[in-house]
Amino acid sequence: MGSNADCAIAIDLGGTRIKAGIVDRDARVVARHTIPTEAERGPDHVMQRIIAEARDLADEARRRSLNPMGVAVGAPGALSQSRGVILAPPNLPGWNNVPVAALVRERCGLPTILENDANAAALGEFWTGAGRGVDNLVLLTLGTGIGGGVVLGGRILRGFFETAGEVGHTIVIPDGRPCGCGQKGCLEAYASANSIVRIVSEQISAGTATVCAETLTAENGLTAEHVAEAAQAGDSVAMQAWDQACRLLAVSCVNVQHVLNPQVIVLGGGMSAAGAQLLEPVRRHFSELTWPKINDRPDIRLAALADDAGVVGAAMLVFSGEAT
Amino acid sequence: MGSNADCAIAIDLGGTRIKAGIVDRDARVVARHTIPTEAERGPDHVMQRIIAEARDLADEARRRSLNPMGVAVGAPGALSQSRGVILAPPNLPGWNNVPVAALVRERCGLPTILENDANAAALGEFWTGAGRGVDNLVLLTLGTGIGGGVVLGGRILRGFFETAGEVGHTIVIPDGRPCGCGQKGCLEAYASANSIVRIVSEQISAGTATVCAETLTAENGLTAEHVAEAAQAGDSVAMQAWDQACRLLAVSCVNVQHVLNPQVIVLGGGMSAAGAQLLEPVRRHFSELTWPKINDRPDIRLAALADDAGVVGAAMLVFSGEAT
Repeated sequence: MGSNADCAIAIDLGGTRIKAGIVDRDARVVARHTIPTEAERGPDHVMQRIIAEARDLADEARRRSLNPMGVAVGAPGALSQSRGVILAPPNLPGWNNVPVAALVRERCGLPTILENDANAAALGEFWTGAGRGVDNLVLLTLGTGIGGGVVLGGRILRGFFETAGEVGHTIVIPDGRPCGCGQKGCLEAYASANSIVRIVSEQISAGTATVCAETLTAENGLTAEHVAEAAQAGDSVAMQAWDQACRLLAVSCVNVQHVLNPQVIVLGGGMSAAGAQLLEPVRRHFSELTWPKINDRPDIRLAALADDAGVVGAAMLVFSGEAT
Repeated sequence: MGSNADCAIAIDLGGTRIKAGIVDRDARVVARHTIPTEAERGPDHVMQRIIAEARDLADEARRRSLNPMGVAVGAPGALSQSRGVILAPPNLPGWNNVPVAALVRERCGLPTILENDANAAALGEFWTGAGRGVDNLVLLTLGTGIGGGVVLGGRILRGFFETAGEVGHTIVIPDGRPCGCGQKGCLEAYASANSIVRIVSEQISAGTATVCAETLTAENGLTAEHVAEAAQAGDSVAMQAWDQACRLLAVSCVNVQHVLNPQVIVLGGGMSAAGAQLLEPVRRHFSELTWPKINDRPDIRLAALADDAGVVGAAMLVFSGEAT
């Protein structure tokens, strides 16, 4: 009795994993698959995997009496959202101008949209995560690199060149550390998980005593989690690297505050698993760095959706009619 | 025959001068008055002057068979646009929660809107100045301080706390020079006219040889124009201060590029009178600082409307129906 409920097929394409899900209109992920990207086998192979996932999930949705309204693919930049094309992302080697949206649309027979993964995650947090009930927010995804997404009045700020929201590549130390993007002194060069590890490793190479030295030479190497643990345990090299990351994150939060003036800034991505160890120093530095008098301070929060943000946000693009 | 053409009454309230004008729908300033603010006599006195100007210009408009649709007042922040209240601007001493829009509305009998002066100027440049024909722009007004305004899709970005666009108070050197706003290392602390003068003056105090030393002790004191002239003439202290300002302006342009991704960044305010001496080094530093590969570079331009930007932009708010 009655017609089938709507759902969206959402795909989050990462350098190592493809996460895919069926999302209903209440932002519930009613089914999810995670498969390895196998990026080393090149774009044709990965596109086959994406299309197979999308078709499988659309079939699964129909078996569950759900009506798939479209497919949304979140992917790392650089990409052109309006043309649905992945240009040349650093962690997807060999991808050059791949028309993702057109390929998925054609092979799945469903309206499709391609979006930057951090933008999709920002929309997910806005819709049903840390930003539920607010009008606008900025999300920073703190992982291997630092991604960013801006939601204003419920819509992603894409920018004239479709590369807005890249807070990770704002310059926090002019002529500072080199960043993978080719600039110097980017936030990402100090506060991403990779950069924190690199900074501690440099200290180890320079002979500074730190408990991280043992982990570095162990089988799986040093990670930002190890640095966080060592900082918690009072290791001074780890504490310094972690605190520098938090302070420069706070500088970027001040700059976002003054330019965009959002209600909420959300810290997400792998590093946000550190919880209070991340949030508290960022908030403390922020209070110390910002305007003492005018009360226009965004609430800085941890992300709420963890791994689901990208899938949920991508689904919202389908429900809001942006897939074509 | 036919009805009267519409016009707007626009007032630009500055710390030293009140500029007022009648603006027609083609963005022409068909009449203009400039009077001293007499800010030292306090807010009641200044409000009387603003109201008298607005009423005079409305009468003048009617005599010219124009129909004044409303009044727009551009004023320095901090202010609440939505409530029409000037909160506490640093260069209007004694102003605390002055309900400017309500007072003007009541005494002039016309719909009235209050807006941040840099926002109004950004809208002016967007409408008919350096940003004509573009979809979005960011304006930096380089004067005593550094103001900023952001126009996205033809609308001012006001922000959740109504203090968006304050690019002058983004931090470019963490823990750097103190800024009048209470923060450290703001763009304004290096690249405003006042800061450039202060930086050169410190060098003079420290005994560094510079031609600026003579001007500093002369009757009217040292100005940013003098520093620009001395830099042009090859004075190394002046060159260093000027170049540092241009480089940090370029850092802010990179940061605006990555966060907002506008089509155009406009440099306005008194310092933009330096023309190519400002624009060329900012562009050169920007090219050196930004992403080498992705072509999402905003066009950095000089403002086109000079002193009229605020009045013209304020008028646009009236024509777009924002005065109430």
